[in-house]
Amino acid sequence: MPSYATNMRLKLPILALTLEAVTIVLYALLVVYDTGDAHGHDGSHANPNTTHSSSPMTLYPMFQDVHVMIFIGFGFLMTFLKKYGFSSVGINLLLAAFGLQWGLLLQNIWHMHDGKIKVSIDRMINADFSTATVLISFGAVLGKTSPVQLLIMTLLEITVFCINEHLVVEILEVSDVGASMTIHAFGAYFGLAVARVLYRPGLQDGHENDKSVYHSDLFAMIGTVYLWMFWPSFNSAIAEAGDAQLRAVINTYFSLAACTLAAFATSSLVEKKGKLDMVHIQNATLAGGVAVGTCADMNIQPFGAMLIGITAGVISTVGFKFLTPILASKLRIQDTCGVHNLHGMPGILGGLAGILAAALGKKDGVSPAYQACGLASSLGFALVGGLITGLIMKIPFLGQPPDENCFEDSIFWEVPEEEEEHEEHLTHGDYSTNKTEA
Amino acid sequence: MPSYATNMRLKLPILALTLEAVTIVLYALLVVYDTGDAHGHDGSHANPNTTHSSSPMTLYPMFQDVHVMIFIGFGFLMTFLKKYGFSSVGINLLLAAFGLQWGLLLQNIWHMHDGKIKVSIDRMINADFSTATVLISFGAVLGKTSPVQLLIMTLLEITVFCINEHLVVEILEVSDVGASMTIHAFGAYFGLAVARVLYRPGLQDGHENDKSVYHSDLFAMIGTVYLWMFWPSFNSAIAEAGDAQLRAVINTYFSLAACTLAAFATSSLVEKKGKLDMVHIQNATLAGGVAVGTCADMNIQPFGAMLIGITAGVISTVGFKFLTPILASKLRIQDTCGVHNLHGMPGILGGLAGILAAALGKKDGVSPAYQACGLASSLGFALVGGLITGLIMKIPFLGQPPDENCFEDSIFWEVPEEEEEHEEHLTHGDYSTNKTEA
Amino acid sequence: MPSYATNMRLKLPILALTLEAVTIVLYALLVVYDTGDAHGHDGSHANPNTTHSSSPMTLYPMFQDVHVMIFIGFGFLMTFLKKYGFSSVGINLLLAAFGLQWGLLLQNIWHMHDGKIKVSIDRMINADFSTATVLISFGAVLGKTSPVQLLIMTLLEITVFCINEHLVVEILEVSDVGASMTIHAFGAYFGLAVARVLYRPGLQDGHENDKSVYHSDLFAMIGTVYLWMFWPSFNSAIAEAGDAQLRAVINTYFSLAACTLAAFATSSLVEKKGKLDMVHIQNATLAGGVAVGTCADMNIQPFGAMLIGITAGVISTVGFKFLTPILASKLRIQDTCGVHNLHGMPGILGGLAGILAAALGKKDGVSPAYQACGLASSLGFALVGGLITGLIMKIPFLGQPPDENCFEDSIFWEVPEEEEEHEEHLTHGDYSTNKTEA
Repeated sequence: MPSYATNMRLKLPILALTLEAVTIVLYALLVVYDTGDAHGHDGSHANPNTTHSSSPMTLYPMFQDVHVMIFIGFGFLMTFLKKYGFSSVGINLLLAAFGLQWGLLLQNIWHMHDGKIKVSIDRMINADFSTATVLISFGAVLGKTSPVQLLIMTLLEITVFCINEHLVVEILEVSDVGASMTIHAFGAYFGLAVARVLYRPGLQDGHENDKSVYHSDLFAMIGTVYLWMFWPSFNSAIAEAGDAQLRAVINTYFSLAACTLAAFATSSLVEKKGKLDMVHIQNATLAGGVAVGTCADMNIQPFGAMLIGITAGVISTVGFKFLTPILASKLRIQDTCGVHNLHGMPGILGGLAGILAAALGKKDGVSPAYQACGLASSLGFALVGGLITGLIMKIPFLGQPPDENCFEDSIFWEVPEEEEEHEEHLTHGDYSTNKTEA
Repeated sequence: MPSYATNMRLKLPILALTLEAVTIVLYALLVVYDTGDAHGHDGSHANPNTTHSSSPMTLYPMFQDVHVMIFIGFGFLMTFLKKYGFSSVGINLLLAAFGLQWGLLLQNIWHMHDGKIKVSIDRMINADFSTATVLISFGAVLGKTSPVQLLIMTLLEITVFCINEHLVVEILEVSDVGASMTIHAFGAYFGLAVARVLYRPGLQDGHENDKSVYHSDLFAMIGTVYLWMFWPSFNSAIAEAGDAQLRAVINTYFSLAACTLAAFATSSLVEKKGKLDMVHIQNATLAGGVAVGTCADMNIQPFGAMLIGITAGVISTVGFKFLTPILASKLRIQDTCGVHNLHGMPGILGGLAGILAAALGKKDGVSPAYQACGLASSLGFALVGGLITGLIMKIPFLGQPPDENCFEDSIFWEVPEEEEEHEEHLTHGDYSTNKTEA
Repeated sequence: MPSYATNMRLKLPILALTLEAVTIVLYALLVVYDTGDAHGHDGSHANPNTTHSSSPMTLYPMFQDVHVMIFIGFGFLMTFLKKYGFSSVGINLLLAAFGLQWGLLLQNIWHMHDGKIKVSIDRMINADFSTATVLISFGAVLGKTSPVQLLIMTLLEITVFCINEHLVVEILEVSDVGASMTIHAFGAYFGLAVARVLYRPGLQDGHENDKSVYHSDLFAMIGTVYLWMFWPSFNSAIAEAGDAQLRAVINTYFSLAACTLAAFATSSLVEKKGKLDMVHIQNATLAGGVAVGTCADMNIQPFGAMLIGITAGVISTVGFKFLTPILASKLRIQDTCGVHNLHGMPGILGGLAGILAAALGKKDGVSPAYQACGLASSLGFALVGGLITGLIMKIPFLGQPPDENCFEDSIFWEVPEEEEEHEEHLTHGDYSTNKTEA
């Protein structure tokens, strides 16, 4: 493959170590612990918990729940492909590990104290959040990109995310506690824009490896169930302590429960023999967590959350069945994981629900017009940012794999010999030990 | 298969959406957040933490541990069957998602405030608990039932559970903090009664798919280890805050540790070559958590908890080896997961240990006679409720699978083509992509 | 195999039940709950949180994080071998379940109150910690030892660990909050010393089963990611409440993030085609957590933690690539999991970083000389203890498996028939059900 520059031996180390070196220099200049007398006069808008907490560790269990969602949840959710599990969970770890360092810097550059960024648990939660946008976009281009392309996407997407988040949450004071708009819709449409630029005509008839096997679907369910369980923490982690945080937990709990019944019902309904489709169960059961995000801390009551959840579950499943193929064939957007159905449409639904809830006065001081601006801004930054990022990622030097090596770890990973090959080796008396170093 | 109505295309959507619609109407009428002035004068008997907690979120980490046990623990524990992993973890999610909504309604209908049920974290913990009964019973009938049958079982079992729990815990004031009697023994004997009614003579010589493969046993160990780790949270989550809660954690920790050594020892002892059996390790190591449940908050001291644990580990392993085959052949109870050994006998052991501990004065205000009534009531409601539920589930319209399709996902799920088939397709140049939608 | 005594039928039950019986007697005599008036005048040096906590449950979420690292993290990390998953996660459970009971006794025998050991959450965290040493050593001898050998190693290693920990932490007052020296370096060199004594010339050319398959590498990533996520809890769990604990969390978070980029970069760099090696990603990404352990609660600032992390990531990956083969061929130390690279060298790095930080005054009252003594003592006790333990484990009666049965569960476990055999059985109409008991 002469025109593909997929050997990462120099590119990946140089890029990763350069990014890390720049980060360390910036941290040495700017980042300190939020300890001692820093407490009590933190005027930041986005972290009301800091001032209310009796202990700097109050939010730590919430942080760990979000941490599990980022690294286990997103990582394993993407292991559904038969030959792409190493990349899914491994590259997920790489991107999030860099992203959290970069996100923490850019999210807090706007409001430093004495020229310093002060790290606390709620800043770490927000840093983890910023990586979620990248991991969503990763789903849209899964199997079709190199680690170097993806590190560059991480750098650029988190930068754009931080600008949009600052505009929406801090300047416009839009309410988006569970980030339906600023993370889910943003991450999905950013990723879809990238996927549009990276469109591969060669994959329009599918690819042998773009599907699951039985056990890869079970690995993916580890991701699904962890995201499902801890989504109440995602939507409530940065809510105001007390009743608002409790509401965010309760609303998310019930939205997801209702969404799950809707996803199972719809999955069975859209298939001729009434069989359930694992793709729907892995993804659409989670749409209720996305869609209730903006409203999570509002006074919408449990039944309101359930209505949002049931709507999200139906929309998401229908999207997987009917919309994803159309996106690929008509709009030339090949969305590997269907992030449009899990994060895109439910994210917009969440934004719209927030506008409606604001209009109905479900949270003091929230205006429907500003909420609508927040949604529009998130979509606009996502599409423009994603298109530009996609153009940069398209540079051949960055190592995009050829069509025939898509959805396969072995182009970027040393992979254990296949069991069937192995059997042959046994037959021929060849006990090669390509993974053993001892 | 003319007499089997296993196409779920209309039945499952109609049932699931009807149940959800009824639930939403009832929630709109009855369920609100437990926020604001609701705190401080909650007279409910079952949630002492609400009144003591300084924050509505105090129990949230405990809730999340219990949540993981319900969705990952039970879900993956049942993935041990070679071809039934989708159903195990997927249907587990469906049943628990409906069950928690239904359980929260029925558990709190007895003591509403101003005509409203007020949702708090401890009510959510109890709602999760109520689903555990169903997931235990699911284990007894695993592989032999349709999703529609199981949703109906969920509806009925949680209803019966809530009646028995109200009688035992609130009216008789029986002490059962870890629910050895009201959840574990109840869920097991309910499920065994259902399995008795659904007895299948055609499976008396076993079934090709009623066994594990290597990786399915490893998936099941994910469930085992999560249940093992978080059982201290299960047994202490609704204990009185302070010393009683600490005792519940410590007793469960040591009971499980001792039980684990007993389970490994017994597993090795009962096999001719002294080899360990994965079924025992997956299940019997957990029996100590079940058996210490009733006594968990009592002053039995760590060594007392260890004695309970070691007894449970031995009984459970011996049950798997010798009793389960007898139950199937003599009593016509085919117990797929061996819930009798993990939840049934250890649950009764827990009840008996509670009677003994009460007689020895290990908890103030607890009477051995009432404890015995609690055990008898739980067993009685379970057996009668299970028999009636089993008769309802037997209606052919509900989609029970034929014998030859038992223990196999493919009757209710779209399943990826097998790897060996796949290889054939490759040979014949057929690159069908039955899972791909992009 | 006449000279191998691998039938565990009597040995394992007798050993396990004897150990448990002795433990229960000692607990009946010595161990009580830390409840009631015990609070408030606990003079113990190692658990400062007890006196500061408002509730006995304050550290419970931290405990559960550590618990997950011990049972899921270590257990699944070792499932990477193709045919050794049952032993990895199962024997891990057995050893840790016994180890925590034994560790709690020996760690607290030095400072009893009124002749009693009082169990609290922080004592349980320390008990879990003590098992980590054994699980690290288990990694060095993985696949080459019997359960009986390993239970004896657990008994002896935890005994030696408790002596060294008492000397280093309580008498010399060395600062080692994340236990780089007393757990990681100790566990690694203890295990390497055992592996040296148990050296098998027959394995010097590798072994057919001493490698991974695709899905076993994915199971191992479950362990990796859980260890990665919860390492901040490991390093901060017993830190002084407040700012020191927050620093320990933040330093570990950033050290791991930087280490991850270094591990990916180095893995790609050392392979000719620039491909990533799963062994490096599974292990070297965690070295930053080990190496920052001693300094975790010190005032080294985030960028200091990142420098430690990046160094650890490079050293660990280079170790896997170049040092492990040399250890095996020149020093006759066959280190199955490469614990020298994950715990050994990073543990020493952590100790050295602690000496440097002490010299730079990053924590009050900490002396470089005493820190150096702590490192020397940990290495000395590990090597001498490991050599003696290895000699005891070498007694043939204890059931060491023959070379040809190494790295294979089936010598100590009943293992499901292979799928390929199964296919043959199908062809021949043989529906044997060796795992089914119903």
